[in-house]
Amino acid sequence: MTDTHQAEIEEIRPFGKARSTVKGEPLSKEEIEKYNDFFKASLYLSLGMIYLKENPLLREPLKVEHIKGRQLGHFGSAPGQIFTYMHFNRLIKKYDLDALFVSGPGHGAPAVISQAYLEGTYSEVYPQKSEDPAGMQVFFKQFSFPGGVGSHATPETPGSIHEGGELGYSISHAFGTVFDNPSLITLTMVGDGEAETGPLATAWHSTKFLNPICDGAVLPVLHLNGYKINNPTVLARISHKELEQLFYGYGWQPYFVEGEEIESMHQAMAATLEHCVQEIRKYQKEARDSGKPFRPRWPMIVLRTPKGWTAPRKVNGHYLSGFWRSHQVPITGTTTNPADLKTLEEWMRGYEPERLFGKEGRISDELKALCPTGNKRMSANPVANGGLLAVPLKMPDFRDYAINVDKSGATVEGSMANFAKFLRDIIKNNPNNFRLMGPDETESNKLAAVYEAGKKVWMGEYFEEDEDGGNLSPFGRVMEILSEHTCEGWLEGYILSGRHGMLNSYEPFIHVIDSMVNQHCKWIEKCLEVEWRVKVPSLNILLTAVVWRQDHNGFTHQDPGFLDVICNKSPEVVRIYLPPDGNCLLSVMDHCFRSQNYVNVVVADKQPHIQYLTMEQAIEHCTKGIGIWPQFSTDAGEEPDLIMASCGDVSTNESLAAIDLLLQHFPDLKIRCVNVVDLFKLIHHTDHPHGLTDKEWIALFTENKPIIFNFHSYPWLVHRLTYKRPGSANIHVRGYKEKGNIDTPLELAIRNQTDRFSLAMDAIDRMPSLGNRGATARDALKSQQVAAANYSFEHGVDPKFLSDWSWPQEGVKEKLQKLNIVS
Amino acid sequence: MTDTHQAEIEEIRPFGKARSTVKGEPLSKEEIEKYNDFFKASLYLSLGMIYLKENPLLREPLKVEHIKGRQLGHFGSAPGQIFTYMHFNRLIKKYDLDALFVSGPGHGAPAVISQAYLEGTYSEVYPQKSEDPAGMQVFFKQFSFPGGVGSHATPETPGSIHEGGELGYSISHAFGTVFDNPSLITLTMVGDGEAETGPLATAWHSTKFLNPICDGAVLPVLHLNGYKINNPTVLARISHKELEQLFYGYGWQPYFVEGEEIESMHQAMAATLEHCVQEIRKYQKEARDSGKPFRPRWPMIVLRTPKGWTAPRKVNGHYLSGFWRSHQVPITGTTTNPADLKTLEEWMRGYEPERLFGKEGRISDELKALCPTGNKRMSANPVANGGLLAVPLKMPDFRDYAINVDKSGATVEGSMANFAKFLRDIIKNNPNNFRLMGPDETESNKLAAVYEAGKKVWMGEYFEEDEDGGNLSPFGRVMEILSEHTCEGWLEGYILSGRHGMLNSYEPFIHVIDSMVNQHCKWIEKCLEVEWRVKVPSLNILLTAVVWRQDHNGFTHQDPGFLDVICNKSPEVVRIYLPPDGNCLLSVMDHCFRSQNYVNVVVADKQPHIQYLTMEQAIEHCTKGIGIWPQFSTDAGEEPDLIMASCGDVSTNESLAAIDLLLQHFPDLKIRCVNVVDLFKLIHHTDHPHGLTDKEWIALFTENKPIIFNFHSYPWLVHRLTYKRPGSANIHVRGYKEKGNIDTPLELAIRNQTDRFSLAMDAIDRMPSLGNRGATARDALKSQQVAAANYSFEHGVDPKFLSDWSWPQEGVKEKLQKLNIVS
Repeated sequence: MTDTHQAEIEEIRPFGKARSTVKGEPLSKEEIEKYNDFFKASLYLSLGMIYLKENPLLREPLKVEHIKGRQLGHFGSAPGQIFTYMHFNRLIKKYDLDALFVSGPGHGAPAVISQAYLEGTYSEVYPQKSEDPAGMQVFFKQFSFPGGVGSHATPETPGSIHEGGELGYSISHAFGTVFDNPSLITLTMVGDGEAETGPLATAWHSTKFLNPICDGAVLPVLHLNGYKINNPTVLARISHKELEQLFYGYGWQPYFVEGEEIESMHQAMAATLEHCVQEIRKYQKEARDSGKPFRPRWPMIVLRTPKGWTAPRKVNGHYLSGFWRSHQVPITGTTTNPADLKTLEEWMRGYEPERLFGKEGRISDELKALCPTGNKRMSANPVANGGLLAVPLKMPDFRDYAINVDKSGATVEGSMANFAKFLRDIIKNNPNNFRLMGPDETESNKLAAVYEAGKKVWMGEYFEEDEDGGNLSPFGRVMEILSEHTCEGWLEGYILSGRHGMLNSYEPFIHVIDSMVNQHCKWIEKCLEVEWRVKVPSLNILLTAVVWRQDHNGFTHQDPGFLDVICNKSPEVVRIYLPPDGNCLLSVMDHCFRSQNYVNVVVADKQPHIQYLTMEQAIEHCTKGIGIWPQFSTDAGEEPDLIMASCGDVSTNESLAAIDLLLQHFPDLKIRCVNVVDLFKLIHHTDHPHGLTDKEWIALFTENKPIIFNFHSYPWLVHRLTYKRPGSANIHVRGYKEKGNIDTPLELAIRNQTDRFSLAMDAIDRMPSLGNRGATARDALKSQQVAAANYSFEHGVDPKFLSDWSWPQEGVKEKLQKLNIVS
Repeated sequence: MTDTHQAEIEEIRPFGKARSTVKGEPLSKEEIEKYNDFFKASLYLSLGMIYLKENPLLREPLKVEHIKGRQLGHFGSAPGQIFTYMHFNRLIKKYDLDALFVSGPGHGAPAVISQAYLEGTYSEVYPQKSEDPAGMQVFFKQFSFPGGVGSHATPETPGSIHEGGELGYSISHAFGTVFDNPSLITLTMVGDGEAETGPLATAWHSTKFLNPICDGAVLPVLHLNGYKINNPTVLARISHKELEQLFYGYGWQPYFVEGEEIESMHQAMAATLEHCVQEIRKYQKEARDSGKPFRPRWPMIVLRTPKGWTAPRKVNGHYLSGFWRSHQVPITGTTTNPADLKTLEEWMRGYEPERLFGKEGRISDELKALCPTGNKRMSANPVANGGLLAVPLKMPDFRDYAINVDKSGATVEGSMANFAKFLRDIIKNNPNNFRLMGPDETESNKLAAVYEAGKKVWMGEYFEEDEDGGNLSPFGRVMEILSEHTCEGWLEGYILSGRHGMLNSYEPFIHVIDSMVNQHCKWIEKCLEVEWRVKVPSLNILLTAVVWRQDHNGFTHQDPGFLDVICNKSPEVVRIYLPPDGNCLLSVMDHCFRSQNYVNVVVADKQPHIQYLTMEQAIEHCTKGIGIWPQFSTDAGEEPDLIMASCGDVSTNESLAAIDLLLQHFPDLKIRCVNVVDLFKLIHHTDHPHGLTDKEWIALFTENKPIIFNFHSYPWLVHRLTYKRPGSANIHVRGYKEKGNIDTPLELAIRNQTDRFSLAMDAIDRMPSLGNRGATARDALKSQQVAAANYSFEHGVDPKFLSDWSWPQEGVKEKLQKLNIVS
């Protein structure tokens, strides 16, 4: 190794006196002592949470019986997070800041919970965990203990909007909180493990979407403590120069605070944080005074400290502090090895609990005075309990956007392009309270009308070409980056802090954020159990570019399985809607935007469609969520021969066409047409609040008639939802079966047997009583199908009658007129 | 705007003469002409694919009837990709390189397909698409046309291992191909849209895991064409300085090639690519000669050209080239607007098809000579058809690692730690052919024994602490980065190029890569339909840290739903195994490692478990995939009263304990114990090749007896798999129902009713004939459950008898001895 190389390595080791970009010693000797006492008190609490169930203040010698039987929790990242949090408190007080803390590193709860406890917030919301020895004991015992709280910043943690159970979303969540929150600074700890994830690695680019006039600021602190569970981290093992350049390249101004020695580190952190706050305020003032938004090189901090900072350097001959062994429970033999117990006791006593918590078992008023008070405490900022701040959207009347449906099944219009006008006016009415997110697909998804009310946020450079339909603006309301993770993270942060929004995405690629949406479902589900949490606006996900119109993009673009993922989440929080036409889409979306604490998933095609329901009918249908469509049925309220059911707009179209085909062959057939908008209507009412009772089910589906169910997604999902239903064996479901190629829509449907011909043949197959007539009709249908498929194959497009089709066709119309079903 | 700012903007606009980091003019005037002719021929083919179904060489004036009815395809990124590809050909020839091309930008197929056609590979594998006018017509028509090939580099594309249907994986895939492939250079185009995704943004760090001695090199070309579908790209709108620093920060040496003017761009690209190749070879030589691996600043190229380069700058008054309007079909009115048709014709003729393809409709030998020949052609490199190169693993005999099970249900051992020894020896036996990937969880997953055979690859800096159990080495065989995306991408690239491997991950966070695994499933499924593709080794995913042992980490760590995602994929390619014990785990993994073209998902807990089967029994059980366990059954081959079924190791344990509890109350009960290893045994044989016939099903489950099925994952999945089965209404499934907290294992199980007591009570509830005896037993079980739960709540751990439990307990043993079931 060369000397240069050795020097480069020394430069990235987290030891010795503080090395920092920002110089200065803003703290007096007394202040340093106070901050260090506060630091020690916090570290003591962190260890107490991990280890102690009794003897919380070590007023007795530490014994095995005081230690939790199973010790759980993570110490490694706590010191650095606490250090950052408490030094920021000084600036909150000094500059009267509105601030929030986002804890990114995994299992970082001891840091944030200890701060909430010392600030008094914890005892306010959980009076049993009071600031006295008895309360501290309960506070310690509950941590990572059955029936207690987890080792993440879970919903039970005051001040938290970000659990960190799954890693990688701290930066995008933080940005979500500050959009349209001009006074807010979200101080965000980023773990260096987390920083290796893809979602985090791209979220640094969020500054290209932040306007210093109307938005607040995110102050990231990359916590380079060097190790993950059992490995070094990438960013801690590259040269100082590379690391600095990486953040310059991401558009940030990195300020380094590196070292271990306490006193100099206090000074360095205090000076650096203050410099960052001043810089943020300077940029904001400049932009706000001039009215000219710009993208400054926003400040961020790289805090390099030993992992498990302040822990013993070695225990039992192995590195602890400054190595990955301090990641989780730092000393593991305390209940079996007396020497380990002793080491722990000495370590804990080194934090001076007796002096710092005194007789009353609480920190002195002088130390407490280091914290802000009331809602200025980061643990009490109402932004972290966004429901408190949320105001309902100013909604235009969705009925005003109705598609005119004079005759059911005869109007063709684009449901999505029509919905775009409603969405545009929501954006117009709520200029600081609603954002639309999308991974560069909003225009492709036929929602471009929204740009009339709010362009796309863009803080990158502008070119002259942008005037030619670029729709970019620093004050935009639509946010587009080709990262579903970033869009979703922004939206989560935005709604958790009390605002509203929607993500629009192609259906196939929404799986990219399966796990993020899962985690959000878990978060809002758990919030329902936390008394002081107020419900937040729903997370709305609109999926389009649906599987049945991805024939031409092929197999990679065909996956409707996000619904399966959603169906596994708690019924308290998930809702799935598949509006069959444009008026239903309006009605459903209106409902979603008014709802709270749900994840609403809406699936709707963006291509032109036959429209079926008037606005009044649509409202009634969507309110019920499922229903018989009498205008497409011929059972006239009697026992039907057959039920043709559908769910999803393209699927409904084919199902209706199949009814039409069947009636051309069998004019007397009593067909009942059932349509499903609200997918959870199918499930038993004991399993989801929207579920039908069996009685209601039978009234729609009967117990013994064949049901041909054309479903938007994978067919098995319907079976999973209906397995308990009476007559479930009669349900014959068609849907996407992972059979795709480069196709026309008809070919794709035939491949998966969801086309009108297949459905009609399915129906005949399930009515053996039709006998020879059935066989003849089946042959005719098969021929029609083959002819249509051949046409498609030859011309590369489907025959006109498939897309121009309206209901009912002439042959059937007369018969329905006789039944008084159509006029 | 200041002048400086204006200058900064000009610097990042893709116009004018070439600006490049590397200077030099390596091409003669004649060479430039030749390369430009080749470029034009390629561009002509790209447009032809998008537009033409007839008149392929424009030998007649272009008419509407020559144009495809529906034009599909993307032109925007083709010119830059072609430009890169063909200039690299010069270096393949000059330096006799072994090279592969990965096309990252979405819908980039015209670029790669045109090259495969000009190199002759396309006609070799698809003789109908010959190099003559008739073949060209077929070649054009098939593109993005029903029954033809898609607009991505789909499996039908020779030379492709990366489809690019979903974006973000080009760099990780590329690295996967070069690990243990020291001679290979994978030239990788990265789209600037794609570069915004999280997976791509973190994959740049892959250099910290690449050893220049044993691995090849990736040469990324970031293609800054400035726009996505309808938006500018982030990286194209930051300053030149920031962009440069970003890549320095990522550890690369960026070389810029920017501009539009053709002649200077040819020179710049030729010089720059050559410089990069020389640098790569220099670093490799240095490391290989010295035997000392190091991490150089690997070269990469930033190619900034106008989007739709060489297209008309404006059409109908709107920007085309150099703007997002050239993204997809560049001129859209050709079939309706004669002026558009004319514009297209002029544009296409500008590429001089008559001169370049001549009378025979093929490029001249002189132009063809610009391409390498045989397997040196990137479109013919066997690495892209990895099955050709794959050699089976040298497998140790898994039986040698058997856990000794003298008495079924009485041995306790960690199945995972035991499997680790087998895995270690696979790594030992296959030092260049197998890699283990994991997101920093390998040690936590109890697989640390593998480090004895291969440490963790690490090309970052080393600290002295690493000696204390760091297990790092530049020559490691285990690859850990905290990015599931990167691990999965590396592994996909590694196996698609013909090698073997496994990803180990916590179960809850595998959802992070749902979409990637979906896409891999689609890739290998489609490969089955491509005649010349040879099967590749399977993608093996081992999931541990399973839901039932995530009680203490809480709700965010509980999600067993990856199986639902997998179940939706094509039955041709997906396999799911849940081995109930350690010997089954060995047998299953042995099978997976020997298999081809599957995605094998194996779920197994890492904690100590009761062991049930001897190796012989395990082999038999796993071979069948499902079976009756006679040693835990009391039906003695007769009609049972009850079937206790289970799938998953923890679930099996509880199910057996429930049998034991039931027998203590009802010694005469005829219980049949059925265990499922291979999940797809449950599905009907017409739906999956592993599925049981109904006859086989009935032999196991009967048609009319109650079945209490304890399932590892969400219970509904079993219903989805079994809805067609006779007697499906008798299946009562328990599984995870999204009910979690900070719990003990028992509490978590009780919450979801998967614990032994709940299962036993479920069984009683379904046997009304037990009458009062049932009610009494039920009460007793309830009391036991409450007592155990209380203990757990109080102590924070479960009572010993739950984990130390062995089968059968004393009370039952005697009765079984009478039945000769146990000795």
